[in-house]
Amino acid sequence: MNLPDLERQLAFLKEIDRLKSIVRLTPLIDRSRRENSAEHSWHLAMYALVLAEHAAGTVDVLRVVKMLLIHDIVEIDAGDVPFHVPATHEGQAERERLAAERLFGLLPDAQAAEFRELWFEFEAAQSDDAKFAKALDRFQPMLHNAATEGGTWVECEVTLEQVESRCRPPIERGSPTLWTVAAQLAEEHFRGASQES
Amino acid sequence: MNLPDLERQLAFLKEIDRLKSIVRLTPLIDRSRRENSAEHSWHLAMYALVLAEHAAGTVDVLRVVKMLLIHDIVEIDAGDVPFHVPATHEGQAERERLAAERLFGLLPDAQAAEFRELWFEFEAAQSDDAKFAKALDRFQPMLHNAATEGGTWVECEVTLEQVESRCRPPIERGSPTLWTVAAQLAEEHFRGASQES
Repeated sequence: MNLPDLERQLAFLKEIDRLKSIVRLTPLIDRSRRENSAEHSWHLAMYALVLAEHAAGTVDVLRVVKMLLIHDIVEIDAGDVPFHVPATHEGQAERERLAAERLFGLLPDAQAAEFRELWFEFEAAQSDDAKFAKALDRFQPMLHNAATEGGTWVECEVTLEQVESRCRPPIERGSPTLWTVAAQLAEEHFRGASQES
Repeated sequence: MNLPDLERQLAFLKEIDRLKSIVRLTPLIDRSRRENSAEHSWHLAMYALVLAEHAAGTVDVLRVVKMLLIHDIVEIDAGDVPFHVPATHEGQAERERLAAERLFGLLPDAQAAEFRELWFEFEAAQSDDAKFAKALDRFQPMLHNAATEGGTWVECEVTLEQVESRCRPPIERGSPTLWTVAAQLAEEHFRGASQES
């Protein structure tokens, strides 16, 4: 046992407890409150375990799960920027990069490097694993919106065209099957909303 | 694509959103509120990724992570019973067994069987993977208690002897190293508490 390494590991595990206090715009399905980024990360890891067969490419489930478990940790320093509020996105990439350096840097060097590289790979969304992980990160909020009479679509006043232009590329690239489902859910919501108005 | 299978997968992923509303006794480290079982499961999966080298046996990290991601899903039906409140434990094993049948049974048959078996393996805590997963599930609340001036140790009025008799076997079996750390944290807390009284 390398005690300094274990101390660094425990300091990191205590620090990331703060992800439970980062609140996203997305509602829980029962609409009792908004989702936080820690429980969102758990949910996405479950999506990866359950839906891996629908990935576009050949994926390594452990790598996809790791990416999803760590993908939002940077928000502890950088905060969450809502996907459908583009005005908040400026400068966020740099804030998140600095956050990744500080937060993963709490770990022993080899683990810090592994997590940093996994996080950059997720952000770049070029590998099959990252494309699928990113697709799930975009797909899950669509399911929540569809199940809550519009969720952030209504709150952020987005159109069906905006949903398609923003969500289709990242989801379809990682899983054409899941995009088919998501597109249908969005169409049903917006068709219903236009009939009501 | 087998559409009925995908529909079952999505129904399961929506249903388990309810785990975010199952509240445990354990406080967040900043003491702003209690932890819920979904974010707890995320945190434990991170513990597994970070601390795997300290496992007593040879572990398959993906299997350990899977166990930890699914281990509390039964609480959606059965509720959480606080570890340090033994009076609540009666009948819980049977309630959880029924919950596992219903909840994992929402999935396509092969996945339902896989998750059920993993959950039973975790509960039995006989395999190296399950021993390590169970050790982490007992270790994380000790870190939170130590970081919050006693947490559930104070709230449930447990003694150092009770902490040792309840926590040492499951933690030491999965990771002697982590038990060494946990025992030291508990001793420091209870020594400090006795000096104050």
